[in-house]
Amino acid sequence: MYSFLCDYSEGAHPRILDALTRTNLEQSDGYGLDVHCRNAASLIKNKIAREDADVHFLVGGTQTNFIAISAFLRAHEAVITAKTGHINVHETGAVEATGHKVLTGSSPDGKLTPKEIQAALDYHEDEHMVKPRLVYISNSTEIGSIYQKTELVQLSEFCKNNKLILYMDGARLGSALASEENDLSLSDIATLVDAFYIGGTKNGALMGEALVICKDELKEDFRYHIKQKGGLLAKGWLLGIQFEELFRDNLYVELASHANQMAALLSKSLRDLGFSFLVHSPSNQIFPILPNVLIRKLEEDYSFYPWGKIDEDRSAIRLVTSWATEESAVRQFIETLTQYHHSF
Amino acid sequence: MYSFLCDYSEGAHPRILDALTRTNLEQSDGYGLDVHCRNAASLIKNKIAREDADVHFLVGGTQTNFIAISAFLRAHEAVITAKTGHINVHETGAVEATGHKVLTGSSPDGKLTPKEIQAALDYHEDEHMVKPRLVYISNSTEIGSIYQKTELVQLSEFCKNNKLILYMDGARLGSALASEENDLSLSDIATLVDAFYIGGTKNGALMGEALVICKDELKEDFRYHIKQKGGLLAKGWLLGIQFEELFRDNLYVELASHANQMAALLSKSLRDLGFSFLVHSPSNQIFPILPNVLIRKLEEDYSFYPWGKIDEDRSAIRLVTSWATEESAVRQFIETLTQYHHSF
Amino acid sequence: MYSFLCDYSEGAHPRILDALTRTNLEQSDGYGLDVHCRNAASLIKNKIAREDADVHFLVGGTQTNFIAISAFLRAHEAVITAKTGHINVHETGAVEATGHKVLTGSSPDGKLTPKEIQAALDYHEDEHMVKPRLVYISNSTEIGSIYQKTELVQLSEFCKNNKLILYMDGARLGSALASEENDLSLSDIATLVDAFYIGGTKNGALMGEALVICKDELKEDFRYHIKQKGGLLAKGWLLGIQFEELFRDNLYVELASHANQMAALLSKSLRDLGFSFLVHSPSNQIFPILPNVLIRKLEEDYSFYPWGKIDEDRSAIRLVTSWATEESAVRQFIETLTQYHHSF
Amino acid sequence: MYSFLCDYSEGAHPRILDALTRTNLEQSDGYGLDVHCRNAASLIKNKIAREDADVHFLVGGTQTNFIAISAFLRAHEAVITAKTGHINVHETGAVEATGHKVLTGSSPDGKLTPKEIQAALDYHEDEHMVKPRLVYISNSTEIGSIYQKTELVQLSEFCKNNKLILYMDGARLGSALASEENDLSLSDIATLVDAFYIGGTKNGALMGEALVICKDELKEDFRYHIKQKGGLLAKGWLLGIQFEELFRDNLYVELASHANQMAALLSKSLRDLGFSFLVHSPSNQIFPILPNVLIRKLEEDYSFYPWGKIDEDRSAIRLVTSWATEESAVRQFIETLTQYHHSF
Repeated sequence: MYSFLCDYSEGAHPRILDALTRTNLEQSDGYGLDVHCRNAASLIKNKIAREDADVHFLVGGTQTNFIAISAFLRAHEAVITAKTGHINVHETGAVEATGHKVLTGSSPDGKLTPKEIQAALDYHEDEHMVKPRLVYISNSTEIGSIYQKTELVQLSEFCKNNKLILYMDGARLGSALASEENDLSLSDIATLVDAFYIGGTKNGALMGEALVICKDELKEDFRYHIKQKGGLLAKGWLLGIQFEELFRDNLYVELASHANQMAALLSKSLRDLGFSFLVHSPSNQIFPILPNVLIRKLEEDYSFYPWGKIDEDRSAIRLVTSWATEESAVRQFIETLTQYHHSF
Repeated sequence: MYSFLCDYSEGAHPRILDALTRTNLEQSDGYGLDVHCRNAASLIKNKIAREDADVHFLVGGTQTNFIAISAFLRAHEAVITAKTGHINVHETGAVEATGHKVLTGSSPDGKLTPKEIQAALDYHEDEHMVKPRLVYISNSTEIGSIYQKTELVQLSEFCKNNKLILYMDGARLGSALASEENDLSLSDIATLVDAFYIGGTKNGALMGEALVICKDELKEDFRYHIKQKGGLLAKGWLLGIQFEELFRDNLYVELASHANQMAALLSKSLRDLGFSFLVHSPSNQIFPILPNVLIRKLEEDYSFYPWGKIDEDRSAIRLVTSWATEESAVRQFIETLTQYHHSF
Repeated sequence: MYSFLCDYSEGAHPRILDALTRTNLEQSDGYGLDVHCRNAASLIKNKIAREDADVHFLVGGTQTNFIAISAFLRAHEAVITAKTGHINVHETGAVEATGHKVLTGSSPDGKLTPKEIQAALDYHEDEHMVKPRLVYISNSTEIGSIYQKTELVQLSEFCKNNKLILYMDGARLGSALASEENDLSLSDIATLVDAFYIGGTKNGALMGEALVICKDELKEDFRYHIKQKGGLLAKGWLLGIQFEELFRDNLYVELASHANQMAALLSKSLRDLGFSFLVHSPSNQIFPILPNVLIRKLEEDYSFYPWGKIDEDRSAIRLVTSWATEESAVRQFIETLTQYHHSF
Repeated sequence: MYSFLCDYSEGAHPRILDALTRTNLEQSDGYGLDVHCRNAASLIKNKIAREDADVHFLVGGTQTNFIAISAFLRAHEAVITAKTGHINVHETGAVEATGHKVLTGSSPDGKLTPKEIQAALDYHEDEHMVKPRLVYISNSTEIGSIYQKTELVQLSEFCKNNKLILYMDGARLGSALASEENDLSLSDIATLVDAFYIGGTKNGALMGEALVICKDELKEDFRYHIKQKGGLLAKGWLLGIQFEELFRDNLYVELASHANQMAALLSKSLRDLGFSFLVHSPSNQIFPILPNVLIRKLEEDYSFYPWGKIDEDRSAIRLVTSWATEESAVRQFIETLTQYHHSF
């Protein structure tokens, strides 16, 4: 049984495990105040050409999202997200649990637009309603699409003009950056958004996300919020070491490139066999539409998520690849698929 | 300038003001532990034939909603409401501010259905998502519609079968009960829902809502929640005295009947003039669709809320009547309207 | 049975009730956006000589405290209060319920000092601890003491130097201002603190507190917080009308003066009889220490709170007077007391 | 520079790192639903002889504390802890951030007693105050003391009789269990408390705490709370693998024994040199009182926390040992100390 369930099914890239082993008995200061975290932060700040940014290392994505959002907002302020946004769907109301309403744009392709945000602003007119204040976007999105530079520039300008905070969830930022269709650099992103995080958990790390705060007003006392919300890892250097390794050279993008190539291989084969897709996704998640009988056969040998019913006979499924996905497994999957397909 | 903006534009019904004046210098125990509150609670419990119910008097509707909801729910549990529900739109995220996500059904007529709730249950499948737990309905609804007994029975059974708490916002319960189309009694409601409140603010009181908790599991320590959330009025007897007056005889329904009759008078005249309505509303709020030019003329002499654009030339407005609405003002409005209408 | 339990045992001063009756059928805009609230705010701003202040009318003291505190603070920031502070003892954790830790100074006389605040600042040294940010004081305090001008000036300077917000709970501000020992004017207070409220509930109003925000940074979007936390009274003018009446002339201080005089009458008689007091309280609350046998006799005819055991034979009790306390009742109490005292 | 700052200055015990390396490329289900977590939970349940317990693996102690406490309590309920309790001092108000007041007993030895809890119960008498509901204790405590069986039995009975939840913070549970003075077994603890956690971070793991919920009423939907509060590690098996290793045999207690022995070595030497201690601490934290001149010399070669001023010339410091503390470093420290001591 091979799994295409998600991009966090394996441990860490060997280089990361090596680094952890090599440094295991070093004595370090706790809570991220160590040399590895400082060094990893430096590497990231160099990469984005923003020496003034603050970089914090956190353990997971949900944690990073609600800590950042609750630290950035006052009690009456709300978040706007695409309906498919992770904070709206799969974080058990973590943002609401810190007191903030989550407003949604319909965003059929998973990407939020200035027009949708404008509609939310227009609707919320006075103190009887929440005040939209933070725009949450994911790149790549929860359904595999990615933001183009022109789109992000437009969002950025719109947010600046409307005094909105622009925050990017980068749980799969590697996959977006490594996409063949991507025209955004990390430093573009750091210029265009107010805060974002670089996901490690889904791109080669054991765990860990690097939150980058670009806007000065959002930086103050942030470590208090991390601690209060349970995000300050005692052995914080474990995160620093992993991001040192990911950003020491080009490893972060290389790992994502592999994931994307594996997904592209799957996509091409599926397309060649005549299957269509729920959404265009040039990243490491694809959503092919397959006959239910075929899905049931594939489930005998492979794990993946059902995504939604299309009609009586067909459903969309989600296939996710990662830095650890073996090309041989992908080719085996394609072969199996092709055989089953032809047998019907 | 006469106002049809809302049903809380005037003070209190004279009988209520008299009672407050009469008792003004009595020394009473504070925080609702006085004889008037006990007596008012008794009157209400008699009316609903539920001696076992708990009755709490609170100052306002938003306050009652979020205190009840946050007291009833655990942190991961969510509320389901019609999209138009007051808690979803006009309470500045008060429910989210206590930590709970608000899920919405589209409910074009303002009323939630078992089917919509079932969809929410189906969608929220595991611990990565909030757990729908409380069903919030308003009667009459925010757009003037009312629940029929069969509808409420179905909701009640559905909620029982699915271990959901059924809560009714009765800010305008008087108007629903007094509606010509109503077939629900207060005691039906007390049997069918787990908790509800009887709105005083919008039906003759200076302020005040009577929260009735019918289900035993929801009663424990409720006064702690009232106090913690700022709802325990020091001179609690002020609320008790008002509800004594409203429920000593049939005053509560009589006041609402007057409001409904004034709305019906407006509706009939508008219909006679050929105007249509946004929604069927047999209560004290109506939503006629009028030409924009006519609306602008009416605004010279009357206050009312614009509700929404229908097309280039027409908009819906909201007209609200109350216990205090003067029939002469209504007739004057109709006359003005008729004149303007004919002059175009 | 005559009650000295508290200063909110009766309704409103007759002038207030008259004003409410007189204006009862006026149509007003809701939520405090009416002419009475504007007028009352003007009267208060004139009195404090601060045209730039924001004035908001809320229903009760607990509500005012936690709405203001939660609106003013970020999530990691804490409040410092005297141990006896109302927010620490008698608000069911309302401040903590909005997420903020409440730190305490021992303050044996109910008054917080710069030294106690400095100790809290020294102790809370880094992001593993909350960050003290708001200083909460009550005037008069919960045990009847009042702040002298030099004390408030020192607190004010200390807070400014340490970037702390100074907030005064004025539930019994009238009683402090009307005290014979008081040397603070309302306008002194408005200059020295960042925000404070003028209590109506305990000084002649049916209900109502006027929150005055003096510091610009604390003003933004405050009405959103009032609404979200359930404090935006639909018929907001009810509060405006009451404060118009209290501040139209000198009524506010006159009512408090009466209360203080009644307390002084009790104090003098108790002192004359040889009794001592738990604390020096030149306001409308006194805490005499009496033999338990005497207390039990008094309880036959009077209500008051037991305050604490002093030794095997004696306890402190709390006696509270108000604008409504009848001098004849006070004299009767003294007579009873004297008789009982002499009979032992 | 050798560090005695804390017991989380190094990575993981080699066996744990080996296990992580060995399993690195296994494909596992996410979020703790994998075979390693199941296996580790089984090992723990066997050890405590409670097959019915629920075991959840979380990343850190602060996180475990506030997730458990907020899941177990209703909004008006409060926690009682020793003044030195970690939740009261060093978690940035995490418990208050979830809405709950933290009440403190003075507990000079770091241990809470039934008497202190009773005082809190007596003081909190009605709905104007929070309702004490959960008793938080740490074993070993924040100042190195440990609970004896008779003490825990008394606390347990007291809590049962008063319907209080008894929760044990076991960040340093290993050190307590391995103490020479300990007479409690893990299974005693599981019988006597309602929930507790077994700390991994401070006893050989990279990170990780195993929360054990013994009381049925506290189990329901707990994973929702973990997820909502950011504690559901994507690669949850990383925690499972570590606890498998710690509980596969006796490794957990062995590691703690080593830490305790190193502390005992330090204690004995300090006592032999004539120094006294702030508190009796038979675990891996000791608090010797040293001359300031000596402390300043030691700081040239060793890291440790200053703990508090004793008099003009002396202060207490904290020395912490761990599974990773090298005996040679301890002996070198003692030698340095002895030399300095004799040179004065």
